[in-house]
Amino acid sequence: MPGGLQTDLYELNMAASYLRRGMTAPATFSLYVRGLPPGRGFLVAAGLDACLGFLEGFSFANDELDYLGSLGFDDRALDDFAGLRFDGDVWAIPEGRILYSEEPVLEVTAPMPIAQIAETALLNLITLHVTLASKAARYTMAAGDKELVDFSFRRTHGPDAAMASARASAIVGFAATSNVEAARRYDLHAAGTMAHAFIEAFPDERQAFEAFAQDHPQRTTFLVDTYDTLGGVEIAIDTIRSMGLDDHLGVRLDSGDLDDLSRSARRMLDDAGLSSARIFASGGLDELEVARLVSSGAPIDAFGIGTQMGVSADAPFVDSVYKLVEYDGRATLKLSADKVSAPGRKQVWRGLDDGHHDVLTLRDEPPIEGAEPLLGPVMRGGRRVGAPSLDDARERFRLDLARLPKKPRRLVDPKPPTIGRSDALRALTERTTDEVLRRSEASRDASARTP
Amino acid sequence: MPGGLQTDLYELNMAASYLRRGMTAPATFSLYVRGLPPGRGFLVAAGLDACLGFLEGFSFANDELDYLGSLGFDDRALDDFAGLRFDGDVWAIPEGRILYSEEPVLEVTAPMPIAQIAETALLNLITLHVTLASKAARYTMAAGDKELVDFSFRRTHGPDAAMASARASAIVGFAATSNVEAARRYDLHAAGTMAHAFIEAFPDERQAFEAFAQDHPQRTTFLVDTYDTLGGVEIAIDTIRSMGLDDHLGVRLDSGDLDDLSRSARRMLDDAGLSSARIFASGGLDELEVARLVSSGAPIDAFGIGTQMGVSADAPFVDSVYKLVEYDGRATLKLSADKVSAPGRKQVWRGLDDGHHDVLTLRDEPPIEGAEPLLGPVMRGGRRVGAPSLDDARERFRLDLARLPKKPRRLVDPKPPTIGRSDALRALTERTTDEVLRRSEASRDASARTP
Repeated sequence: MPGGLQTDLYELNMAASYLRRGMTAPATFSLYVRGLPPGRGFLVAAGLDACLGFLEGFSFANDELDYLGSLGFDDRALDDFAGLRFDGDVWAIPEGRILYSEEPVLEVTAPMPIAQIAETALLNLITLHVTLASKAARYTMAAGDKELVDFSFRRTHGPDAAMASARASAIVGFAATSNVEAARRYDLHAAGTMAHAFIEAFPDERQAFEAFAQDHPQRTTFLVDTYDTLGGVEIAIDTIRSMGLDDHLGVRLDSGDLDDLSRSARRMLDDAGLSSARIFASGGLDELEVARLVSSGAPIDAFGIGTQMGVSADAPFVDSVYKLVEYDGRATLKLSADKVSAPGRKQVWRGLDDGHHDVLTLRDEPPIEGAEPLLGPVMRGGRRVGAPSLDDARERFRLDLARLPKKPRRLVDPKPPTIGRSDALRALTERTTDEVLRRSEASRDASARTP
Repeated sequence: MPGGLQTDLYELNMAASYLRRGMTAPATFSLYVRGLPPGRGFLVAAGLDACLGFLEGFSFANDELDYLGSLGFDDRALDDFAGLRFDGDVWAIPEGRILYSEEPVLEVTAPMPIAQIAETALLNLITLHVTLASKAARYTMAAGDKELVDFSFRRTHGPDAAMASARASAIVGFAATSNVEAARRYDLHAAGTMAHAFIEAFPDERQAFEAFAQDHPQRTTFLVDTYDTLGGVEIAIDTIRSMGLDDHLGVRLDSGDLDDLSRSARRMLDDAGLSSARIFASGGLDELEVARLVSSGAPIDAFGIGTQMGVSADAPFVDSVYKLVEYDGRATLKLSADKVSAPGRKQVWRGLDDGHHDVLTLRDEPPIEGAEPLLGPVMRGGRRVGAPSLDDARERFRLDLARLPKKPRRLVDPKPPTIGRSDALRALTERTTDEVLRRSEASRDASARTP
């Protein structure tokens, strides 16, 4: 996503003012989620790689500057924009870590104009990835040791979101994706079976199954519900036996009562001596249905997960914000109703002993004993620090999930832990509040004096 | 979105089989929505332009073929893929038209392999655009003659979705977008005010307002809620008067009780002789809140609409499907539980007299008197037919909305009209069902006879 126009117009209006006025001192913006959506006991950090990619590539192309000229930006603004690159620092919580509301996913420190323009894209990308990873994590918890495959491409909000869905679900432990481009881009396992259209294109189900098994002997999963599910299982069994296929092949159930049908299919496969054949289930499953199927003991080996995850259907966004917390060495905040922000650069400390006991502090406070800091530098002077892999992120999530206490972990009515705040952060918040109120009143009094 | 890998693996598995077996006869796939989401009385056709763009650009790059080779596709399959282009026909309901479930948004007729591979991208794009346009339309109905501006970029599911949100909301009558790239790409009005960070970067609100008004005299809307909303209005008024600014400028309320605050702000502006100054409201508004503010008479001139529209928060997807309805001249369908499809190429006829009274027919049936056909050819032999503009789409929506009956139009508990089916479509459905059941049974009997 290159291009300086990938932003809201107001960011450019403000940036033009900052540049004109020489307001290019370092600003720190803190990107965090203002409260968890209903049904979420935690979030998963994700999207950082996309954000750093955006910042690295940021610039205005000539035709983009021409367009801005047509909107009324004058030559001076266009000249200023032409030279803009992202040369700042980013601190972040690494991808795959579990986090909670109010904890900064990332903090950008850069000259005010570029830090401001980046707001829209950074919010967009973090919101997307965090939303999808946090939803996908619920499937991971629901599925236990059953395999999960991302089937969401066809229903995500555009192809970008499909790539994000594949990547986010991989971070939280999904085994594969149906999305070929995502598999290539992120080095994931690509997986897929067959569609109803394939069956319908042949004179009958048996001929379709035989053709597919001949052409793809290593990856045949027979889709059995086109006309009649258990009839389809019968034909699949017969095809496997008559063609002498490996018995690690399987069947996919995509409609109807999956609990009931999987038990019948399992019996039929076992009776036919195909006890290694796998049963794959799909069809609009949300994580609660997966949890029910798993806990009822339905003999399903793997689940294909699509729409409900791909759009995070029950909570399709998080209340993410990008707030100025410091400008030119001065702490800042806003006091808008129900939207108060906290000033200063932050750090999050997580207790190592007792699961997730997090404390929000200022970045430069001394370490809290027995706790680890979650944020670290990931970009300095516009260049990435380190190159964490997707495997690293997956491992981080695995470890964090293992330590996650019960209340945030519940699928139904989860409760996030309480986040502590350091004395220094509280004191700075009070001091800054007093200060802005004092200046705000003085500003208003000046207005009142004007005739 | 170029690239043959923008698909699910199973499409490529199936396509490889079709190609190997010479199954390249024309297939018709029908893309429709299987039922309206809760809270929707109608849908808006959108996304066609993106679909045609995808089909026009479709091909496999060499590195994509290499990747497929690494997945196990053999040289023969890769050779076959290398030559694939979309050279088929598309019929569609034009963008901006109101439509209902079961009505094909588009129908693709092309050689089976390419028609199959296109499934994933076409479903993805139509689902995204229809979902967002249908949500945005509810704001249009809620807002009456108040102005609406798209503010959704920061919270959509990725930048693609942000572009779709800007475009979809323009189709249903939004006046402008904050998204600069979308404004350029689709020739929309770009709009924007200022953020809280701008205020905070200055020593006080007054200095921030003055600076912005000096730098952007033609597009100043003062954001007044950073510290204290009505105090901010006071300072805005004072700034306008002391700087002798045009009185068409305005204030933006972004938090708190918008009804109450807008009335107070209006009074203050009027008392100061600024009766032309506009009041702009934003802040997580859903369409029901907009409707309440409008019907209560809150003096708000324009609304900035973000997240709730940008992710269609109450219904973030539609149950879209892409079903094979004809292959090589033979009608097809599937009979999966609760997911039965109807065979044959379709047309939708809409009664011209009595609002929306739609009848689903086969494409080649004679016209229904007093009704207009909704689907028409938009691509022939891989080339677009005509070049409908966004303005055309906007005009279509305006006309369709004006004729929309009350029940589908209600914001709360809307009810779509009943869609009729022609005798010929019913007869073909019965005949095809009988036929596939007969063949399916024969196929199963053959299985039963195998030892």
